[in-house]
Amino acid sequence: MMTSGPFAVEARHQNKSARTRARLMDAAVEVFARDGFEAASVNEIARMAEVANGTFYVHFKDKDAIAANVAARIATDIADQIDRAMEGMDDALDRFGFATRQFIAFASSQPQWGWVIIRAASFLPEMHRQMETHMCADLEMGCRQGQISAEIDAFLVDTITSMVFAALAARLRGDAGPEAGSRVTELVLNMLNIPPQRAHEVAWQDITLKDLHLPTQPKTERLAH
Amino acid sequence: MMTSGPFAVEARHQNKSARTRARLMDAAVEVFARDGFEAASVNEIARMAEVANGTFYVHFKDKDAIAANVAARIATDIADQIDRAMEGMDDALDRFGFATRQFIAFASSQPQWGWVIIRAASFLPEMHRQMETHMCADLEMGCRQGQISAEIDAFLVDTITSMVFAALAARLRGDAGPEAGSRVTELVLNMLNIPPQRAHEVAWQDITLKDLHLPTQPKTERLAH
Repeated sequence: MMTSGPFAVEARHQNKSARTRARLMDAAVEVFARDGFEAASVNEIARMAEVANGTFYVHFKDKDAIAANVAARIATDIADQIDRAMEGMDDALDRFGFATRQFIAFASSQPQWGWVIIRAASFLPEMHRQMETHMCADLEMGCRQGQISAEIDAFLVDTITSMVFAALAARLRGDAGPEAGSRVTELVLNMLNIPPQRAHEVAWQDITLKDLHLPTQPKTERLAH
Repeated sequence: MMTSGPFAVEARHQNKSARTRARLMDAAVEVFARDGFEAASVNEIARMAEVANGTFYVHFKDKDAIAANVAARIATDIADQIDRAMEGMDDALDRFGFATRQFIAFASSQPQWGWVIIRAASFLPEMHRQMETHMCADLEMGCRQGQISAEIDAFLVDTITSMVFAALAARLRGDAGPEAGSRVTELVLNMLNIPPQRAHEVAWQDITLKDLHLPTQPKTERLAH
């Protein structure tokens, strides 16, 4: 029973259709996290949301579609939290390195979600774009600071995102260890022609990772807005 | 009716089970190329192979599984053709640039197959590895030639493969033009700390792309081995 999941709370002043959709998304978060993406079923999501199967299909085409929506929301949410964690950090390369390492560390500490995000990324270009907005801001700051000379366009940003997702996937498969975030950060900075020594320093410096929260873990301040 | 597709021809001296499996793969090639991956169905593949649906499931778990097998074979086949096209080319960076640009140009000229390869790549790590074998050989040659100083390990090769697939996907979506192959080549060479001018030259030099063939287009020499 999901009457007060984070999506439902957000949608509580909207119309009935929006509230049902939100309840389905809360239920999907629960079911994916509990059963994993492969084992999760539309039946179980509908049951958890206390709606008929047919109602599910009014709102979403299939399991992939609701997963994509939920993953996009979670990715945005994580990106916002990372942005807040970087408040006051004003070197663009340090910001990029921190965000990349924090994202991979967090997503790999929640493997169910890590995989849903990766799956969604491959068939939901909008999710790519949402995450890219944050990354773009830091890269463009790097240009203004004179640290990056490459032109930041969609192709470049898409390439970087793919590198980060590949590192996350390697981490989730167990093919890479906790160093995956630092390694991909260094590769990206090399690709941007940052001097190798600076790239290495940014990628491997000690950082204190923050404790991020999934929308499945509603907190007081989350309920307040 | 597929009695003499390339997989069947190859399997003609094997046992009945291997021959049936090969016939299903030939049928899948036909159906995917004709209907596209999304619209293709197990029913239609079985019908085309002239076997019962149940027989399909003896050999493959589902449509994704047969697509992965077929895509892996096609990828290997393309990689072999590219290797032959590079005979006599002995600069490792030139080889890497040629192979990358040729692969993207070819896979994007066959969008049905391009998408199947991309889909397969995301859930079939072995396919990644098959393509990586070829790439590794060129990169290691680059190390021996003193052009690449980075250590070539699985993480690096996986990162490069992801970049190439991202470029292909951008090309297939129409987000990138024919320059995608050159752009990603230059980015990879930058990432490997090749001097920027040399990276640019390798990536954008005139090359004559070869006419590659899918296994759906059997040729005499293919039948001979």
